[in-house]
Amino acid sequence: MLFHRIEEVREEVKKWRKKGMTVGLVPTMGALHNGHLSLIKKAKATCDKVVVSDFVNPIQFGPSEDFDKYPRTLDADMELCNSEGVDIVFAPSANEMYGGKCNSDNCKDNTLKELPRLSNDTLTYVCPPFFYVNTLCGKSRTGHFDGVCTVVLKLFNIVQPDYAFFGQKDAQQVIIIKKMVKDLNVPIQIIQCPIVREESGLALSSRNKYLTEQGKKDALVLSKILNNIKSCYEKGITDADALKETAYEFLTDKHDMEYIEIVDKDTLENKTKADDNSIALIACRVEKVRLIDNIYLK
Amino acid sequence: MLFHRIEEVREEVKKWRKKGMTVGLVPTMGALHNGHLSLIKKAKATCDKVVVSDFVNPIQFGPSEDFDKYPRTLDADMELCNSEGVDIVFAPSANEMYGGKCNSDNCKDNTLKELPRLSNDTLTYVCPPFFYVNTLCGKSRTGHFDGVCTVVLKLFNIVQPDYAFFGQKDAQQVIIIKKMVKDLNVPIQIIQCPIVREESGLALSSRNKYLTEQGKKDALVLSKILNNIKSCYEKGITDADALKETAYEFLTDKHDMEYIEIVDKDTLENKTKADDNSIALIACRVEKVRLIDNIYLK
Repeated sequence: MLFHRIEEVREEVKKWRKKGMTVGLVPTMGALHNGHLSLIKKAKATCDKVVVSDFVNPIQFGPSEDFDKYPRTLDADMELCNSEGVDIVFAPSANEMYGGKCNSDNCKDNTLKELPRLSNDTLTYVCPPFFYVNTLCGKSRTGHFDGVCTVVLKLFNIVQPDYAFFGQKDAQQVIIIKKMVKDLNVPIQIIQCPIVREESGLALSSRNKYLTEQGKKDALVLSKILNNIKSCYEKGITDADALKETAYEFLTDKHDMEYIEIVDKDTLENKTKADDNSIALIACRVEKVRLIDNIYLK
Repeated sequence: MLFHRIEEVREEVKKWRKKGMTVGLVPTMGALHNGHLSLIKKAKATCDKVVVSDFVNPIQFGPSEDFDKYPRTLDADMELCNSEGVDIVFAPSANEMYGGKCNSDNCKDNTLKELPRLSNDTLTYVCPPFFYVNTLCGKSRTGHFDGVCTVVLKLFNIVQPDYAFFGQKDAQQVIIIKKMVKDLNVPIQIIQCPIVREESGLALSSRNKYLTEQGKKDALVLSKILNNIKSCYEKGITDADALKETAYEFLTDKHDMEYIEIVDKDTLENKTKADDNSIALIACRVEKVRLIDNIYLK
């Protein structure tokens, strides 16, 4: 079932609840790929009923980011969800999520143009801790994780699932969401699923659609750097700076590196010595497309 | 039943849910008076089961505010709740609410001393909109409403009530909480209950305990000012400045006025012309005790 309205989702979930069924939520921004598919399969295996939300959330994009051109493929998304037996696809308009009236007949039209100004002047936000935000992707994406937490908590409150499924690909995101769930006593269990990669090693991402074939080849450097760091760690190198420096031998002028970091997998604290609780994360632009990837050292 | 632990409350509420019962939450900071009693009575009349939370929330107090000396009267609170048939009194420690271990045998010992540093560096906060916060009480109480919304959302997530009951006495607070509930799609109905006053007109407040008998007399000025503004409005005066100026004839050197404002009862926007959607609010110190009061003009 495809729903655009919050009340429709609530009504349907309420029926499931009355029957004592468990509910899983897979929050997505659409443009579904095999990474999302793995989340959906895990949700289907874990819960009686599965809701996939399909919403390009305006408030997690910065003014210079790719909100307008972010891929929107609802028809293909629906096909994939139907074939996997997803029970509800929830694809609200921005107006449905952030107030104001949906003036368009086509409520899936998710554009900012119809929206009132959205900011912390007028909207209640969920703000993750500064120490979790002012690092890695948060440094270059001001307000991004506030927007993520706010929309995720809204989706949690709309669907009220027992479980919610997130990919390890967005490692900082899932760590911040787990922290939010703990700090705000959200009664939902977060299930983190492994990164899905192309055979080449490239981590799946909706933004890979922006890349040319050559770009995809150049983008392999991210996973190569991370695999190399992991094997250096396995060989006994623990100095974080030494591990991070191994990245530079892979880089060419095709790569615009934003960060390479080794941090604690739960607290995101920077490590000076890598250990079995460490995660290595990278963000790098290829053909101006911002790509991220990460790997657990153990 | 008196519970100190989050899990105890959740277990009990789950049993009620299975029986299809409705649940009401009355969030308080304890020191219960007849104002709270009216909330409890309303909750009992509305819901099958009632939870009263009794928690002096450290993160809504500023460093120079009265967290340490805020009245704590759990035994008396329990007595009142028992006599009203309250089903659960939830009195967690600060550690139970904000992490860390409860080192004290006496989990009701709600002191900051045992706590790790709490700030937006390390804790996920709920931040109401700037336009709702940077006015009235929020101007002098930086971070207060962030702390209020954060603890209220936590309590909502712990208890998961159908209804939550708040007093109009803290008018800005209830407006901000309604806004939070709307913005974050919290599946809870907020019930706002009228101010309860002493026969003299003094609005009930836990902080009235700080006042001497003379102080209580001096504090009557707050309700007198508000009643006078309302009767001026009823006589046809709508200019907000003119209405506010009527306050000053009541003030003596016993009164340290913080603000007198006329704002929209839903959006807190300042009014230049009062209308039937307006609310007049006052904050004033008497014997250094900060008192607030408000009145709907219609």
